[in-house]
Amino acid sequence: MAGFIKSKIRAIGYSFIFGLILAISLSCSVQQQKKETALLPSWNDGQAKQSIIDFVNRVTDKTGDDYIVPSDRIAVFDNDGTLWSEQPAYFQLFFAIDRVKALASDHPEWKDKQPFKAVLENDMEALAASGEHGIIELVMATHAGMTTAEFEQIVRDWIRTAKHPRFNRPFTDLVYQPMLELLNFLRDNGFKTFIVSGGGIEFMRPWVEEVYGIPPEQVVGSMGKLKFEFRDGKPVLVKLPWIDFIDDKDGKPVGIHRFIGKRPIAAFGNSDGDLQMLQWTAAGPKTHFCLYVHHTDEEREWAYDRNSPIGRLDKGLDEARKNGWTVVDMKVDWKVIYPFELQER
Amino acid sequence: MAGFIKSKIRAIGYSFIFGLILAISLSCSVQQQKKETALLPSWNDGQAKQSIIDFVNRVTDKTGDDYIVPSDRIAVFDNDGTLWSEQPAYFQLFFAIDRVKALASDHPEWKDKQPFKAVLENDMEALAASGEHGIIELVMATHAGMTTAEFEQIVRDWIRTAKHPRFNRPFTDLVYQPMLELLNFLRDNGFKTFIVSGGGIEFMRPWVEEVYGIPPEQVVGSMGKLKFEFRDGKPVLVKLPWIDFIDDKDGKPVGIHRFIGKRPIAAFGNSDGDLQMLQWTAAGPKTHFCLYVHHTDEEREWAYDRNSPIGRLDKGLDEARKNGWTVVDMKVDWKVIYPFELQER
Repeated sequence: MAGFIKSKIRAIGYSFIFGLILAISLSCSVQQQKKETALLPSWNDGQAKQSIIDFVNRVTDKTGDDYIVPSDRIAVFDNDGTLWSEQPAYFQLFFAIDRVKALASDHPEWKDKQPFKAVLENDMEALAASGEHGIIELVMATHAGMTTAEFEQIVRDWIRTAKHPRFNRPFTDLVYQPMLELLNFLRDNGFKTFIVSGGGIEFMRPWVEEVYGIPPEQVVGSMGKLKFEFRDGKPVLVKLPWIDFIDDKDGKPVGIHRFIGKRPIAAFGNSDGDLQMLQWTAAGPKTHFCLYVHHTDEEREWAYDRNSPIGRLDKGLDEARKNGWTVVDMKVDWKVIYPFELQER
Repeated sequence: MAGFIKSKIRAIGYSFIFGLILAISLSCSVQQQKKETALLPSWNDGQAKQSIIDFVNRVTDKTGDDYIVPSDRIAVFDNDGTLWSEQPAYFQLFFAIDRVKALASDHPEWKDKQPFKAVLENDMEALAASGEHGIIELVMATHAGMTTAEFEQIVRDWIRTAKHPRFNRPFTDLVYQPMLELLNFLRDNGFKTFIVSGGGIEFMRPWVEEVYGIPPEQVVGSMGKLKFEFRDGKPVLVKLPWIDFIDDKDGKPVGIHRFIGKRPIAAFGNSDGDLQMLQWTAAGPKTHFCLYVHHTDEEREWAYDRNSPIGRLDKGLDEARKNGWTVVDMKVDWKVIYPFELQER
């Protein structure tokens, strides 16, 4: 899968370079049009795609008023629902459920204790009823106590072997092909791409470099407390069962400021949890670009917005329309959703 | 100053490229020796300099067992006492003192309250007696309440205008020329350089890119809590008077794991506060390099180690010797300390 994505990424990179050479050698506007069609190939022509290309053209045009130096070309991406799917539950929840099952024999008390009982009985309704608090309890109880190195290995093993219930494919197969192209398009134009996700930072870092081309140091996420100590004479970092930082809603601009220290000029999200990140980006003094992915494709992916318990997009949708932010209509704007569709064609 | 450093950095970059071309076109070992002399020109030939060059040669030699891919070439640097001086007090304390004086008219109660009273009466002994707690109180009281953008502007203004009491020069004149060369040498060899400092992250970010060539997103430091809110209809981040994270001692490996998410292969420090960072680096599975700057030059800089209240190097010095880490003897190993000495020659 990753190899496939890598070769995709490479192919897109080549086509972009080819496009650039074309644009340089032939300067009439018809050729310019051709070049732009070759960009973002999984995006249908339309307002969303055009708004991205226009923005990138503006900030990279040295002769224009909107030019931005490469070191300030910071682009931030939410992960769940923006770079990969998030239904029927955040994928990290499937990971935590698998951890509960793996650890259950060491914890006989879980049989009678929610939310663990719900997980062990496959009672998704009871699990949902435990709410956000219950899910955080699951994550903390199953992630804490081990060293960061041990946890990393568990994530690596899980991401390689676990399957999504609807597609029966590895979860990383459910990344969005058009967003992979967008990440590459931005990087090809001098942008530094960051993930800014409510998901666990240590749950993402082991695989996002291979899948998205984003290195660990460009990942911002939620995190638990850590403790430095010596085990068997070697220094280790131990995961503690306490939350340190929730990188969601109001936390996203805080996380951006903490980790990046610069205001982004482009922000990509899909839910009200990303609204403050988009507002923070939009309030900058420079040219900026804000985009919401709107989940409108029940057949190929999922359709949900204002009333969804996961990835609710309500206030954000209103604000996007009011401010003229780009709203991607997945059903209309994306030729393919997942990379594996390209193989199946 | 910054322009001068930049032109220095550029000159060093050019000489390195020239050195490389030389090495490629002439391959006998005498020429190799010449090339290495051209590297790190402010370092005297000796064990410290040679250990750096040997390490870089080993990890960049694709045919050797110690080769490390560029994306794993992470180097972390303490700031105070490692990249710039830290005597007679951490430079951020001078900043906090200036802030107390600037804000005193709005705080009549400070006249009778320590540690503010000590600052207003220039009573450095009483200030020292207030200890670490007193200094943190100063920093929190004078840094909190404003927005991050307002604070950034204050730091920028201060760093441009404030003068060090001994040298009567901007504080950024007191960066170490040999360390600037080292930063560039590592970057020229594919390393990504990070600051990992006990100092305030927001105190460093406004100027370290210009002075050290390290962008804001590669700075890890101590930080206060932040709050996202709207002021006059615009989103802002407000600095709160509570500590969020102290990036010192045990905190340094935690900060590295949080912000970088990868174990460094090279770590540079000068005090016991850096020991855990060096231990964490040394415990990695790959080739690594640990270096302590030992302040031994009373005349050109300062001489202090085991009994110094600031930048104490005691346990770290023992451990460095036990583990064979490189210990720089400033007086012996460095031809010049500060960049301005090059102008004065």
